[in-house]
Amino acid sequence: MGKKNKEKTPGDDRKVTSAVVEGLKKLYKSKVLPLEQLYKFADFHSPYMLDSDFDARPMVLMLGQYSTGKTTFIRYLVERDFPGMHIGPEPTTDRFCAIQYGNEERVTPGNALAVQADKPFRGLTKFGTAFLSKFQGAETPAPILEELTIIDTPGVLSGEKQRLGRSYDFVQVTEWFAEKCDLILLLFDAHKLDISDEFKRVITSLKGHDDKIRLVLNKADMITGQQLMRVYGALMWSLGKVIQTPEVMRVYIGSFWDQPLHNDENKRLFDAEQRDLLSDLRALPRNSAVRKINELVKRARLAKVHALIISHLKNEMPAMFGKSAKQAELIANLEEECVKIQRQHGIPPGDFPDLNRMKELLSVHDFGKFPKLDKRIIESMDEVLANDIPALMRKFPQDTATKAEQLLGELGE
Amino acid sequence: MGKKNKEKTPGDDRKVTSAVVEGLKKLYKSKVLPLEQLYKFADFHSPYMLDSDFDARPMVLMLGQYSTGKTTFIRYLVERDFPGMHIGPEPTTDRFCAIQYGNEERVTPGNALAVQADKPFRGLTKFGTAFLSKFQGAETPAPILEELTIIDTPGVLSGEKQRLGRSYDFVQVTEWFAEKCDLILLLFDAHKLDISDEFKRVITSLKGHDDKIRLVLNKADMITGQQLMRVYGALMWSLGKVIQTPEVMRVYIGSFWDQPLHNDENKRLFDAEQRDLLSDLRALPRNSAVRKINELVKRARLAKVHALIISHLKNEMPAMFGKSAKQAELIANLEEECVKIQRQHGIPPGDFPDLNRMKELLSVHDFGKFPKLDKRIIESMDEVLANDIPALMRKFPQDTATKAEQLLGELGE
Ligand SMILES: Nc1ncnc2c1ncn2[C@@H]1O[C@H](COP(=O)(O)OP(=O)(O)OP(=O)(O)O)[C@@H](O)[C@H]1O
Ligand SMILES: Nc1ncnc2c1ncn2[C@@H]1O[C@H](COP(=O)(O)OP(=O)(O)OP(=O)(O)O)[C@@H](O)[C@H]1O
Ligand SMILES: [Mg+2]
Ligand SMILES: [Mg+2]
Repeated sequence: MGKKNKEKTPGDDRKVTSAVVEGLKKLYKSKVLPLEQLYKFADFHSPYMLDSDFDARPMVLMLGQYSTGKTTFIRYLVERDFPGMHIGPEPTTDRFCAIQYGNEERVTPGNALAVQADKPFRGLTKFGTAFLSKFQGAETPAPILEELTIIDTPGVLSGEKQRLGRSYDFVQVTEWFAEKCDLILLLFDAHKLDISDEFKRVITSLKGHDDKIRLVLNKADMITGQQLMRVYGALMWSLGKVIQTPEVMRVYIGSFWDQPLHNDENKRLFDAEQRDLLSDLRALPRNSAVRKINELVKRARLAKVHALIISHLKNEMPAMFGKSAKQAELIANLEEECVKIQRQHGIPPGDFPDLNRMKELLSVHDFGKFPKLDKRIIESMDEVLANDIPALMRKFPQDTATKAEQLLGELGE
Repeated sequence: MGKKNKEKTPGDDRKVTSAVVEGLKKLYKSKVLPLEQLYKFADFHSPYMLDSDFDARPMVLMLGQYSTGKTTFIRYLVERDFPGMHIGPEPTTDRFCAIQYGNEERVTPGNALAVQADKPFRGLTKFGTAFLSKFQGAETPAPILEELTIIDTPGVLSGEKQRLGRSYDFVQVTEWFAEKCDLILLLFDAHKLDISDEFKRVITSLKGHDDKIRLVLNKADMITGQQLMRVYGALMWSLGKVIQTPEVMRVYIGSFWDQPLHNDENKRLFDAEQRDLLSDLRALPRNSAVRKINELVKRARLAKVHALIISHLKNEMPAMFGKSAKQAELIANLEEECVKIQRQHGIPPGDFPDLNRMKELLSVHDFGKFPKLDKRIIESMDEVLANDIPALMRKFPQDTATKAEQLLGELGE
């Protein structure tokens, strides 16, 4: 994409995106994180965010049965060979590979990659060495990798081979990446369409990320136009049954590599599809920034409600006697306490976390040790939501800003 | 199709087909019907067959939302206007219309058509005058109608209009025709794809006839190649959810009328699809003859088992006293009696009819009045199955004969 990309993603766009991300990072550290830390947010909800959580480039996850052309597709996007690349007709890619920007060509083994604090792969340690030895990073100075990181994966095999041949849980690892990625490309080979039960299982596990999924019907030039229609129809017919959303998934039909078309009957279609796919990829950094705003807003609202709950509980505690009885009572009546908070501070009910989980987590804390409500810090959080975030959004060109506002609108309901 | 058709359906083929149908008719009347009548088959299973049940031309049922081009499609097949034809952008066809061969142009009102013994529409009387006044026949001397009869239908409307605007049960009527037809074409407008809940309900009601269904994505030349792919994908995605079979339905993509293509980007595809559709239609008479053989075999086997059951029951009856007690006992123990018949005559268990239904029907008959087993007539039925039908099948060219034998093989399991 490098050259093709350059004309259309003006440097401006990249500047805006990184300015927004920097702004988010500053907001989080100066206004959200202090509130989170005061009320032990990480003990209840999710870990404090690190710079790397903001800086990570948008990620694209490639999935497909073996030999559908995943690695070749990546080779085509980065316009160069990358270290550790293997392409061939047999199942070739035998590991997950994060293809990232780097000034020099380098391969980093999975065990090393998963402990780097500035990379977004720390969470993978939970899959153990059995997986990490089948994971690696590949750095190469391809321009497109300044915009996004690509995850190559081993092709899904059929039957026993997939189940027994892997020393780790393929579906769980895929789910982890799906969660972290901004786009998931499912590759299919038009020339040899096959959707094994194992691949169906992988697709089913992507549920909840439907909006990130795009389909690629690759090698579409290897068959006649009429055959292509049959194959494409069969693909949609089957996938419609596997993926439960009524909205149709976008499919890009073509041949995604640097070779001339075998059958150019559909050249016009293939060219248009390639253009669309590339411009979708180009929009990723911006969309990813919108998503990060979106997530920070969700998080800031939760941090505020969390602070209100904790400080309210603290406030209800007696000064001297019967502390543990009162604490138990407060936990048992958490629902009613939350209704009070809701009324007093005008919080929408949808903003409250799962109270059953809260109850469990609260029971291991001593309410006496919680800090009192600090009004200024809550006001500062309200300012984040009311002023700082909208100001960040105004940095985007009109269309993206509108999209972002829609997202926030949905959240506000 | 007329002219296009002539070169490829040699008169030979038509001769073979009608020879087979004549043969079936003779077999039924000379060997199957006498056995059926002897043991009152029609009281228990289905009405005695008339010549018209054999002679009826294969029927093609057209279904689709309004304005998808159903009537235009028929106009294109018959290569002429037919009486009562209405084509237009608004919902135009307001009734079911059977377009049949006739030496002269003629319209027959539904009430008259449904009582004609030589036509296959007698069953429609059960839908009453409310329906029959929305049904008509159109005769015209188009060559293709010598091979098949076409049923035009009013377009399915959306929402209330469909439910309230019809004075009869559209889904039930459709089901009746689906049962009688050899091919069901579901038309969709690529230019304005819409699958209303009402149309989905119609499609769902076709369950059990999946092998007869073909899809037509019409007006495919009114949009660009890329739009067509989106629309086609959406169609298959949605239908895959509505129709439960894993096998993909065949779709014919094109523009089925006599006008030049609006956008000829996909001319090659459209031409190939048109050819395929026409040759599928051409194969109908032969396939329909195979289906008739198939049905006669099923019927003959059932008639034989029926005769064995009835004559066995007769045989078990006492000569003088305790007749009604014995009859009640036989009915209550019908399962065990059938096991005896099964053993004695070597009948596969799958050949027996639904015994609960049998019990009910038996209770209103007097076993004493049943005739005794006539060995010769059973032997004659065995001859039908062992010799006469295979001899008829040998009249077909090799490929059809093979197909027919497969069908029979499945039955025999
Ligand atoms: N667009 C294309 N058209 C035709 N052939 C292709 C295309 N892309 C890739 N191929 C060929 O398909 C084969 C498999 O390619 P590749 O190794 O990239 O697939 P893969 O999906 O990465 O497989 P694996 O899952 O085994 O890693 C190779 O022989 C490659 O040359
Ligand atoms: N292949 C085609 N390409 C473009 N337009 C078409 C095509 N076939 C039919 N039309 C136009 O679509 C409109 C509807 O056609 P027609 O009346 O045949 O549809 P229909 O399905 O029979 O509708 P209804 O259900 O109301 O009877 C007409 O204006 C007709 O000219
Ligand atoms: Mg590979
Ligand atoms: Mg019509």
